[in-house]
Amino acid sequence: MGSNKGLLIVVSGPSGAGKGTICKELLKNNSKINVSVSTTTRLPRVGEKDGINYFFINKNKFENMINNDEFLEYAKVYDNYYGTPKEYVIENMENGKDVLLEIDIVGALQVKERFKDAVFIFILPPSLEELKSRIVGRGTESVSDIEKRYGSAVSEIKQVIKYDYAVVNDDVPTAVEDIESIIKAEKCKVLRNYEEILSKF
Amino acid sequence: MGSNKGLLIVVSGPSGAGKGTICKELLKNNSKINVSVSTTTRLPRVGEKDGINYFFINKNKFENMINNDEFLEYAKVYDNYYGTPKEYVIENMENGKDVLLEIDIVGALQVKERFKDAVFIFILPPSLEELKSRIVGRGTESVSDIEKRYGSAVSEIKQVIKYDYAVVNDDVPTAVEDIESIIKAEKCKVLRNYEEILSKF
Repeated sequence: MGSNKGLLIVVSGPSGAGKGTICKELLKNNSKINVSVSTTTRLPRVGEKDGINYFFINKNKFENMINNDEFLEYAKVYDNYYGTPKEYVIENMENGKDVLLEIDIVGALQVKERFKDAVFIFILPPSLEELKSRIVGRGTESVSDIEKRYGSAVSEIKQVIKYDYAVVNDDVPTAVEDIESIIKAEKCKVLRNYEEILSKF
Repeated sequence: MGSNKGLLIVVSGPSGAGKGTICKELLKNNSKINVSVSTTTRLPRVGEKDGINYFFINKNKFENMINNDEFLEYAKVYDNYYGTPKEYVIENMENGKDVLLEIDIVGALQVKERFKDAVFIFILPPSLEELKSRIVGRGTESVSDIEKRYGSAVSEIKQVIKYDYAVVNDDVPTAVEDIESIIKAEKCKVLRNYEEILSKF
């Protein structure tokens, strides 16, 4: 179908599922997908650019945006806010661009409350064994951190029921193809095209 | 996702939309899709084979099958019955084969009442002008038959709201790709895989 409006594609999943790699490959292959840019109150690091890595704003402005319901989701991490501004997402969608939002599960479920039209995709590891070996494989964490990360990944997977689609990241190209198919299929949904169809026929 | 059960894919649409051509191409490219074989009480024509073109049975047996609720849909056309037997579809699905059912809109809506898990795809012509020229292009019908066929196609298109997906047949390979994406996406649906996911994690 030729629906002219873009989609909001929310990709999340537990740590170790590999959502970051998948999203990077997806963006590389699909120039019509823009990545959602977050807003934060933390200071830019060396090399970070406003509007590319983040929209950098101050705390006052961020809290005003919260009060005006301008975020699809936001969170406070230690002393800094991070959030997904609605305006950027909606503007892109109106211009026919799909928007990819890679986000943790808590954030995704916030988005779901505010934006039911989005497509929610959960990235699963192929197995628990593989999940554990990926978390261990990072090699940067203590045994207790690994156990903690693994435990929370396992409990996060139970949230999959709140998502529309589950994609297993056994092989990255296959997982990317699955997401591309999901996007194509969603654009064929009658509910996304009904007005256009009625106006043509 | 690796759901082992096949899907029932119901493809329908108005006369002139080109669903026959699309289904033929889809089957050519996808050996994992089997076409649903109908049951009929009409006599086999020369060259037709039982179990390939149709399952040929007598009227008594057909009516028994109706009474035993063994059809996904059926219809009586003049003096003959035609129907889609549940058993063939379900057996294939249990064996991991997707089953394609190309059917008119009345039949598709009967299937929907009995088999909510199926995927319902509506094939649309690119425009009313193109629909008309395709119907005229057959060159086998009188002006009044053409008008009648066109009129009923237009009113059939209003039924699209009862389908899950709408695929525009502007270009056959693109329409086939859309259907392939829909099948892939449906297999990633959390609701089709939830038990399997819970059993693994």
